[in-house]
Amino acid sequence: MEPGPLSRPAEPGICVSGSPGAGSAFPASLPSGVGAEPGSRPGTVAAVLPAGGCGERMGVRTPKQFCRVLERPLISYTLQALERVCWIKDIVVAVTAENMEAMRSIIQRYGHKRISLAEAGATRHRSIFNGLKALAEDQPDVVIIHDAVRPFVEEDILLRVVTAAKEHGAAGAIRPLVSTVISPSADGCLEHSLDRAKHRASEMPQAFLFDVIYKAYQQCSDYDFEFGTECLQLALKYSHTKAKLVEGPPDLWKVTYKRDLHAAESVIKEKISQEICVVMNTKDEESAGHLLKEVLKKELNCVNVTSTVLDHTGSDVQKFPTDQCYSFICVNFAVFKVVSPDFHETQKFLSTLEESGLSLLYPVVVVLVHCCDLTLAPLAPKMESLMWIRSLAEDMKKRNILLSGLLLNYSEDEQKLQESFQQGASIIAALVKDRSPALAGQLLLA
Amino acid sequence: MEPGPLSRPAEPGICVSGSPGAGSAFPASLPSGVGAEPGSRPGTVAAVLPAGGCGERMGVRTPKQFCRVLERPLISYTLQALERVCWIKDIVVAVTAENMEAMRSIIQRYGHKRISLAEAGATRHRSIFNGLKALAEDQPDVVIIHDAVRPFVEEDILLRVVTAAKEHGAAGAIRPLVSTVISPSADGCLEHSLDRAKHRASEMPQAFLFDVIYKAYQQCSDYDFEFGTECLQLALKYSHTKAKLVEGPPDLWKVTYKRDLHAAESVIKEKISQEICVVMNTKDEESAGHLLKEVLKKELNCVNVTSTVLDHTGSDVQKFPTDQCYSFICVNFAVFKVVSPDFHETQKFLSTLEESGLSLLYPVVVVLVHCCDLTLAPLAPKMESLMWIRSLAEDMKKRNILLSGLLLNYSEDEQKLQESFQQGASIIAALVKDRSPALAGQLLLA
Repeated sequence: MEPGPLSRPAEPGICVSGSPGAGSAFPASLPSGVGAEPGSRPGTVAAVLPAGGCGERMGVRTPKQFCRVLERPLISYTLQALERVCWIKDIVVAVTAENMEAMRSIIQRYGHKRISLAEAGATRHRSIFNGLKALAEDQPDVVIIHDAVRPFVEEDILLRVVTAAKEHGAAGAIRPLVSTVISPSADGCLEHSLDRAKHRASEMPQAFLFDVIYKAYQQCSDYDFEFGTECLQLALKYSHTKAKLVEGPPDLWKVTYKRDLHAAESVIKEKISQEICVVMNTKDEESAGHLLKEVLKKELNCVNVTSTVLDHTGSDVQKFPTDQCYSFICVNFAVFKVVSPDFHETQKFLSTLEESGLSLLYPVVVVLVHCCDLTLAPLAPKMESLMWIRSLAEDMKKRNILLSGLLLNYSEDEQKLQESFQQGASIIAALVKDRSPALAGQLLLA
Repeated sequence: MEPGPLSRPAEPGICVSGSPGAGSAFPASLPSGVGAEPGSRPGTVAAVLPAGGCGERMGVRTPKQFCRVLERPLISYTLQALERVCWIKDIVVAVTAENMEAMRSIIQRYGHKRISLAEAGATRHRSIFNGLKALAEDQPDVVIIHDAVRPFVEEDILLRVVTAAKEHGAAGAIRPLVSTVISPSADGCLEHSLDRAKHRASEMPQAFLFDVIYKAYQQCSDYDFEFGTECLQLALKYSHTKAKLVEGPPDLWKVTYKRDLHAAESVIKEKISQEICVVMNTKDEESAGHLLKEVLKKELNCVNVTSTVLDHTGSDVQKFPTDQCYSFICVNFAVFKVVSPDFHETQKFLSTLEESGLSLLYPVVVVLVHCCDLTLAPLAPKMESLMWIRSLAEDMKKRNILLSGLLLNYSEDEQKLQESFQQGASIIAALVKDRSPALAGQLLLA
C-alpha cells in the first residue's frame, strides 16, 4: 500500500455540528451564551493526546498505541476519531523522542490533519504538560485531553465535555464501575469495600478551560507529576475548579490488555461491515441483484445494502458510496448474456476504487460474483476461465483491496437457486466480516 | 451436531494438582497443615456459580451467560474451566426458573459433570445464598464463589484463593484498577478522586470456609440482599472475617459488554489454534511434511505443530493428539504417488475424529492438502476430481467439523515451491484462526 498525500476521501456527514470552513468552527449547537458573549471571540478548542506510554500491561513489546489493528496503528484510529470533529482546531500528540519519526510517518501515510507533535515526558502528566506548553502561545479557550488508546470516542461525548468545561471550568467522562473497589490493609487483607453505587470510573475524554488546567500543571509538585493519575484532581487541587462529571457511553473503554486489541479489531470489523454495495453492470440484472441483496441483509444482520449499476466507462465514481462503504459485491449475471463477464470492466472498477483512496484507512473487500447455470456450462472450464482473478488479486492486495471470486450456481430449479444464493450470501458475509488477506485471490463456489 | 453422552474426551494434563480418583481429591500441593490436621478429614471444596443475571449492560436480549461464543453458550466454557479442576467436588449453578430447562440441556449436550442446579433469586446475593443452601446438607469445608461470565479462570488462582480461605476464612482475587475511581457530589461534580495505588478491583473467584459465608448470608439484611455487591464485605460484616486478597491474572475479566464477547471469542480461537497436527498418510512424505510444518510455525507464531503418519486402517486414534488439538492438516503428496489421494482414507480419518467427540466443545478444522505439480497435471480436472470434498464437508459441518481442501502447487522450481508453501501456510492459518463455517467445503488454491 502506497501512502497517498491528499488522496484520502473526505468523511462527509461525520462533522454533524459545525461548518469546517468557518474561521472559528465552534459547534453551532453549543448552548447559547457559551463562548459567544458579545465582544468575546467564539471559543476555540484544541486537544492533547499523551502517547508516550510503553504498554507494559499489554504483555507485548510494541507500545499499545502503536499496535496494529487491521494493519493500521491503533493511534491512527484515535486521531481519525478526533480529526473528524471539525471544531477541534489543533491536535497535539505527545510521543517519546524515539517514536517521533514513526509517528510522523503514521501521520503522513494515513493523511492525518491538524496534528502537531510534542515530546512526551517520563510520566503521563509530564506528557500532558508538554502538550499544553505547545499550545500555550496561541492558546485555545478549551483543551480536550484524551487517550491515544481510546479509539472509539464520538463527537457527542466530546461536545458534552467541552460544553460542560466551558460552564464549569473542567469536565470529564465517567462510567459505572464494573467491579467493586476495595481498599486493602497493609497485610493484604480487606480493609473495607466501597459502595459501588457511590463511585464511578473516571474515563476520557476530559475538557478544561485552558487557563484552569495550564495553571494547575504549572503548580504541580514532583509527586503529582510522578504518581498522579487524575487531571480532574489537579484542576481541583490547584485551580479550585470542581469538574462536572458527564456520563459517557461504553465505547469509551481504554485498550489496556491484549484481549482489548482483539475486541478493538472486532468492533472495527463490525463497523466497516455494516454497509455493503452491490454493483451490477447492467440494468437487466436488477431483479436477481435484488434477491441477492435480500439474502445478504438477512445473513449479515441489519446491514445497509445499497446497489448501483455501473456505467460502462467504469469511471463514474459518484455512482458508488465510497465514503463509508468498504465492501463491494460486483455481480456478473453471465446467464443473461452471450458474452462472458469482462476482465477489463472489472479492472476499470478496481482502478476507480483505488483512486478513491478508500483503502488507505481500511482494507476494502471486493467479491466478484459470477452467476451461471452450472448444469449448462461445466464447472472446470468455467473456473479456469476466471483464473485471472488470482493475479489481479495479488496486485490489489498490495493496495489493501482484498479481491476474491465467487462462482454462484444460477440454476433453473427454484430450490437449488435459493440454496446457492443462501450459501453465496454466507460466503460473502464471511469474506466481509473476516477480511482475511490470505483468502484474497481465491475462487469460491456456492 | 448431536449431543453425545459420555463421548466427550477426557482432558488429561489439566488437573495438575490432584488425583481425580482419590476419595477426597483436595490438591496434594496445598500447604501442609491446611485441611489435613491429624484427626480432621481433608478438606472438600465445592463451587457456587450465580447465573441469574439478565445481562442488561450487554445491550442484547439473551442474558450474557447464555450468549454463544463459537456456537456454545458462554457459561459452558466457565463450567468446563471449573470441572477440569478435579478437586472441586460439586458445582452448584443458580439459574432462574425460566432458564432451568435451557441450563439442563446445556449440561447434557456438552457433557458437563458434577453440576447441580439451584434456583436463582432476584439479586446476585440471593442467588448465591440459594446455591449455598443447596450445599448445606452435605456441606463442604470450602466453597468457591465464581461468576458464570468469567470463563478463563485457571486452576492456579482457584488453588490460591482456596488455600488462603482455609487459612484466613475468606479470600478473593483482586486486580489493579484500570481507571481512577472518583466519588461524585450530589450535583454531579467531582467530590474527590481515590488514590489508584491504594485501591484494587475486587474480582472473582472468591473462596470461604463454608461456615463463614453461610452464617454471613443467614444474617444478611434485606438491604444487603438487594444492594450489596461484595461477598467479602458480608464475611467481614457478619462473620468478622477479614478476607485475604490474592493478586489474580488479567484473564479473570468479566464478560460485561458486547465487545467482551468479541474478545472472548478471539481469546478462545487463539487458544484452540495453538496446536496443529499435520497428518501424513505415508512415511515417504516426511521431508515435505517437515517443510510445511516449518512454514506453518512461522505463519501462526509459536504454535505447536506435531505430525503423525496415519496407519492405513485409519482407525488408530492414539496416533493423533485428540486432547487439545482442534486443527488437522491432512497432507496427500500426489507427486510421490501413482494413485490419486483416496477418498475412503479421508472418510475413515474423519469418522475417527468424529468418534473422538472432539468437536463437541470446539469446532474442529480439517484441511485436506493435495500437493501436485500443476505444470504436469492441468488444474481444472484436478479441481473437478476433488469436488467430493464439498458434499463430505456439508455432512461434517453438522458435526462441527469444518472441512476444506487446499490444492498446493508442488513445483519442481525451488522458488515457486517456496511461494506456494508460503501461500498455503497463510491460507491454512486463516482457516485455523477464523474457523468460519461458511468456508467449509471450499477448495482453495496456493
